[in-house]
Amino acid sequence: MTTKVNPDLQKERNSATFNTEEFTIWWCGGRKKYEERKALEKRFLEDPDLKDDLPISYMSHKELYEHSVRKAVRIAEKIRELRNNGEDSVDTYSALLGGSLGTALLKEGNPMTLHFVMFVPTIMGQGTIEQQVEWLSKAWDCSIIGTYAQTELGHGTFLRGLETRADYDATTQEFVLNSPTITSYKWWPGGLGHTANYAVVVAQLHTQGEFRGLAPFIVQVRDEETHMPMPGVDIGEIGTKLSMKSVNNGYLGFKNVRIPLNNMLMKNQQVLPDGTYVPPKNSVLTYGTMMFVRVALIRDAALALAKASTIACRYSAIRRQSPIDPNQPEPQIMDHTTQQLKVFPQIAKAIVFKTNGDNIWNMYNQVSHEIEKGQLERLPEMHALSCCLKAICSNDTAAGIETSRLSCGGHGFMDCSNFPTLYGMATAVCTYEGENTVMLLQTARYLVKVYGQALEGAKLVPTVSYIKEAIKQKEFINFDGSLEAIVKAFQFVAANKIRIAYERLEERRRQGHGPEVAANLCGIEMTQAADLHGRSFLASSALFELQNLSKQVSPALAEVLKTILELYLVDACLNRIGDFLRFINLTDKEVGQLELRLQNCLKRLRPNAVALVDAFDIDDRILDSALGAWDGNVYERMFEAAKKSPLNKEPVNVSFHKYLKPFMKANL
Amino acid sequence: MTTKVNPDLQKERNSATFNTEEFTIWWCGGRKKYEERKALEKRFLEDPDLKDDLPISYMSHKELYEHSVRKAVRIAEKIRELRNNGEDSVDTYSALLGGSLGTALLKEGNPMTLHFVMFVPTIMGQGTIEQQVEWLSKAWDCSIIGTYAQTELGHGTFLRGLETRADYDATTQEFVLNSPTITSYKWWPGGLGHTANYAVVVAQLHTQGEFRGLAPFIVQVRDEETHMPMPGVDIGEIGTKLSMKSVNNGYLGFKNVRIPLNNMLMKNQQVLPDGTYVPPKNSVLTYGTMMFVRVALIRDAALALAKASTIACRYSAIRRQSPIDPNQPEPQIMDHTTQQLKVFPQIAKAIVFKTNGDNIWNMYNQVSHEIEKGQLERLPEMHALSCCLKAICSNDTAAGIETSRLSCGGHGFMDCSNFPTLYGMATAVCTYEGENTVMLLQTARYLVKVYGQALEGAKLVPTVSYIKEAIKQKEFINFDGSLEAIVKAFQFVAANKIRIAYERLEERRRQGHGPEVAANLCGIEMTQAADLHGRSFLASSALFELQNLSKQVSPALAEVLKTILELYLVDACLNRIGDFLRFINLTDKEVGQLELRLQNCLKRLRPNAVALVDAFDIDDRILDSALGAWDGNVYERMFEAAKKSPLNKEPVNVSFHKYLKPFMKANL
Repeated sequence: MTTKVNPDLQKERNSATFNTEEFTIWWCGGRKKYEERKALEKRFLEDPDLKDDLPISYMSHKELYEHSVRKAVRIAEKIRELRNNGEDSVDTYSALLGGSLGTALLKEGNPMTLHFVMFVPTIMGQGTIEQQVEWLSKAWDCSIIGTYAQTELGHGTFLRGLETRADYDATTQEFVLNSPTITSYKWWPGGLGHTANYAVVVAQLHTQGEFRGLAPFIVQVRDEETHMPMPGVDIGEIGTKLSMKSVNNGYLGFKNVRIPLNNMLMKNQQVLPDGTYVPPKNSVLTYGTMMFVRVALIRDAALALAKASTIACRYSAIRRQSPIDPNQPEPQIMDHTTQQLKVFPQIAKAIVFKTNGDNIWNMYNQVSHEIEKGQLERLPEMHALSCCLKAICSNDTAAGIETSRLSCGGHGFMDCSNFPTLYGMATAVCTYEGENTVMLLQTARYLVKVYGQALEGAKLVPTVSYIKEAIKQKEFINFDGSLEAIVKAFQFVAANKIRIAYERLEERRRQGHGPEVAANLCGIEMTQAADLHGRSFLASSALFELQNLSKQVSPALAEVLKTILELYLVDACLNRIGDFLRFINLTDKEVGQLELRLQNCLKRLRPNAVALVDAFDIDDRILDSALGAWDGNVYERMFEAAKKSPLNKEPVNVSFHKYLKPFMKANL
Repeated sequence: MTTKVNPDLQKERNSATFNTEEFTIWWCGGRKKYEERKALEKRFLEDPDLKDDLPISYMSHKELYEHSVRKAVRIAEKIRELRNNGEDSVDTYSALLGGSLGTALLKEGNPMTLHFVMFVPTIMGQGTIEQQVEWLSKAWDCSIIGTYAQTELGHGTFLRGLETRADYDATTQEFVLNSPTITSYKWWPGGLGHTANYAVVVAQLHTQGEFRGLAPFIVQVRDEETHMPMPGVDIGEIGTKLSMKSVNNGYLGFKNVRIPLNNMLMKNQQVLPDGTYVPPKNSVLTYGTMMFVRVALIRDAALALAKASTIACRYSAIRRQSPIDPNQPEPQIMDHTTQQLKVFPQIAKAIVFKTNGDNIWNMYNQVSHEIEKGQLERLPEMHALSCCLKAICSNDTAAGIETSRLSCGGHGFMDCSNFPTLYGMATAVCTYEGENTVMLLQTARYLVKVYGQALEGAKLVPTVSYIKEAIKQKEFINFDGSLEAIVKAFQFVAANKIRIAYERLEERRRQGHGPEVAANLCGIEMTQAADLHGRSFLASSALFELQNLSKQVSPALAEVLKTILELYLVDACLNRIGDFLRFINLTDKEVGQLELRLQNCLKRLRPNAVALVDAFDIDDRILDSALGAWDGNVYERMFEAAKKSPLNKEPVNVSFHKYLKPFMKANL
């Protein structure tokens, strides 16, 4: 492989107008974080035990699992080392278990992730001090490996529908676990299939003949010495999936499995030895964990889009195809306007999602801090915002990755481009940790409630205060096309979508439907209102954050950020132009101007596009793409990847002699 | 496994208001075709040699290839039998090589497909009579297996960019084939990797020191006895991909490979022994093949959507989740309005794509017939239409499959749902046989030309005549909401999008850009114009065909088709509401009415949704989905699928002893 950089790519780098390092340092959260990240990457990416010879796409499912357990253990060993040296931090865990580095090391997922991100935190969050003492050191040391078993084959989103039962038997001071139906089997928990030997199991608690609600229990599922399933435990893996192929998602059924009283996690609710049930004081804290995970997913969306746009953008600079001018050679495909429209908005979205992720992360920390002090006022607002942003960011990220892949033509289809894996991981986020439609409906319920309060003159919290202004305003006037006007227009449109949901709900009530049936009949209006609310938040957050940032950076970078912001806002507006035209009186000419402005943004971004994705600073080994590597030797890398196929290791495959030749010679 | 039908599904079937058989017979193209299809399915699906024990998702890449060659050979043997008995037909080949039956037998594609659909037809279409005599019997008999090698690593859409060279050496009367660069390697041809021993290779023809354009050559790439690559031939497979994992796509490079003069296919152009070049008379016929393939893809889109909506619809009737009324049990998720909006439009689209496929198939046959008589007038119109419809139908099908998958929550993510494979196959269509953006641009070039002619008062051919009406009409008045008005409005909107593309082109020309640069600068407007043109054709074709059909069927079925048509048109209109509002003066209230009408269509379709997908009549073995099977025993089937995992064949995987246990015990 040549180490020369592709000249077209070099040309792009030479023509950039800003300093990529300045962007990179900001993107990473400051120089210290940048250096820590680099050091962590080095430590893991250069470990010979973590390097792969055979790309996983050639392995059988079983080979992939065994390969993944080997690597997961090596990663966990190194985490243990870091921890023993006091070198671990929240960033370490998030990079290795959810972040880019973790997915680079185990592209199809880590079967031990849930041990670190759910098993240990659940014991910390829901165990009493005594229970923490008993379980945490074993769990931190990985002398036991756990997972978190909540979802069942027939039950996901609606927690109260869970069927697994835990009946307390006061005579032996034990819980008896049972899976009464096929739909009650636990289904999906990562690492549950063949990796974990313990699980936190969420089950219906019954004591003294009464149903007490759901409770978490620590259950041993496999023997610590032999790893054989414990008596009464029916356990295995659920089979292959679109992605996360090595997460080892499992199923789990119980038949009269007995566990000691003390295995119920009792920080929030208790069962006394005689079976007396002491209910939890409040359930606010469980909200907190869900919000935390959603906020983390919003932040990860930016990284996934950064990867996809790095691949598509570099490849677009290298690939030459289809002449624009028949007298000229084929141009870089990045010179086709239609290609720019596919690639550049993903770069802008990555940056906006990142600023937005930081913004909502800060809000989350502030609200958490207030909650700890017992102030719960902003909890519903924060919950509503995290729900719709989780839905929007995951949806747009998955769609943006597919647009990026399709922009690379056939080559984007190859596993060596890394797009198939990127999409598989990203689209999963649309479903897990709160299915996107369910998320939008949660936000919408909050919004219509707030809308009613606004009509009654109540003061509204910051992220929804625009609703009140819109009610006063009635008509949107003076759309002067400024970025501020676009953001205001977004809010006006969102407020009107909320109004429509509210009015339709009222109408359904007048028709005689109960509130729940009415809400279902208005489900479409409600999801649309929540979508626009989230998008108007993204727009205003982008405006505020990027304008702020521009004041703190060099003029050259500020200019680039200005283009990014304008591109993002104009594109977002044109993507919802139907809603804009419905509520705001824009002429055909004004719409046409927005279109030309979008094209102008694309043109302005063109010279800096490659530099921007360079500035995302994604290591080649993390990007893992023949199309997107730093040096741009796309075709050499594609060949190198092809040569790794086991089929290419021998000139003639055995199937020729076994099947083809006898068939071809049969008629001779 | 219980053979009882799920009671919720049975309830849906009982409540249907129409006769599913009546629909099925129409859907299959009449009773005779229906029975032929059933017989063919039986013949292949019940062959014990074509049944799989291990789902392919558990296999390694190499195992999958060997498995696929075995099955491909068995399929080809049965085709040979049919052929020898005179029982084969065009329908046989299309069902087995491109259609549902073929993809059911070999989910990830058949490495011998290109032999039948490209190698043989190319020899028939481009070989002289003598060449056909020489090659066709061997090819039909499969005593040689061929493929079609055109696309190169660095060159796809733009054919003139191909680099593979064939230099004629008059002294030996041979062509000398060479791959001068890495980008000139053939890349992508199906079956080329390790299956085929011959290929039609498209190369730059050079004779007497002059470049003569592209020409097709028959090249032997592997020895017939040993299957070893021929001298000078560098051949192998390109590696794993998002889908079509067993198509065995290959690469191919030449180093001074000599082939006889007579191996150039010479029906259209000739090289004489002394090297004299005789150019082709016209190149119209190659258009024909491309159109044929695109028309076939449009027809296949309906089948793919029918499969996806069958799975999503049946599962939505069975899955119970998230109470609407807190005092009631969890409802069938099909009762959630948001779920209906995900699932039902896909059913409508499948039906509309089918009627549209029939429509355009008839047009294609008519135009082909005219071409054979030397009448080329309708060729550009047909070409333009087939391009944009290929793009729209493939795009909407891939998107519809993903919407269907996501509507099934986490379970749609499992391979046993069959959604991952369905999507992988469908999204590939967006790229192959003319990348979708390129397709839209081709259509757009035709449309702006026609627009110019219309301004000058020329008479327009049927599918674009609406442009002239729109020019006269200037403003759209009297939108009364009738289906006819929606179709007229679609055409008015399309005409205005074409106008904008035309005017922007003119403007760019006035700014001093040449026609090609101007076209590139207007690429976004042009693709949008082509998209709207195709969608307005789909709308008018749906109206015409379904209203016609309704007159020929029972009143009960006619009523269902009426709902389908209205759902399709209203949904299509709301999906492009921004364009409608830009050019047509609709009030907020009128938009609101369209929304409520969409909801009303969903509600009316609800009782017949399961019956409609039943009427698509997709055999369980073809549907191949635990979520979508006829009997609705979703959870039992999911379990059955999980049990097939090789990991579940042993209680403890070897990785516990090798990796996990030493690690877990390390600190003890």
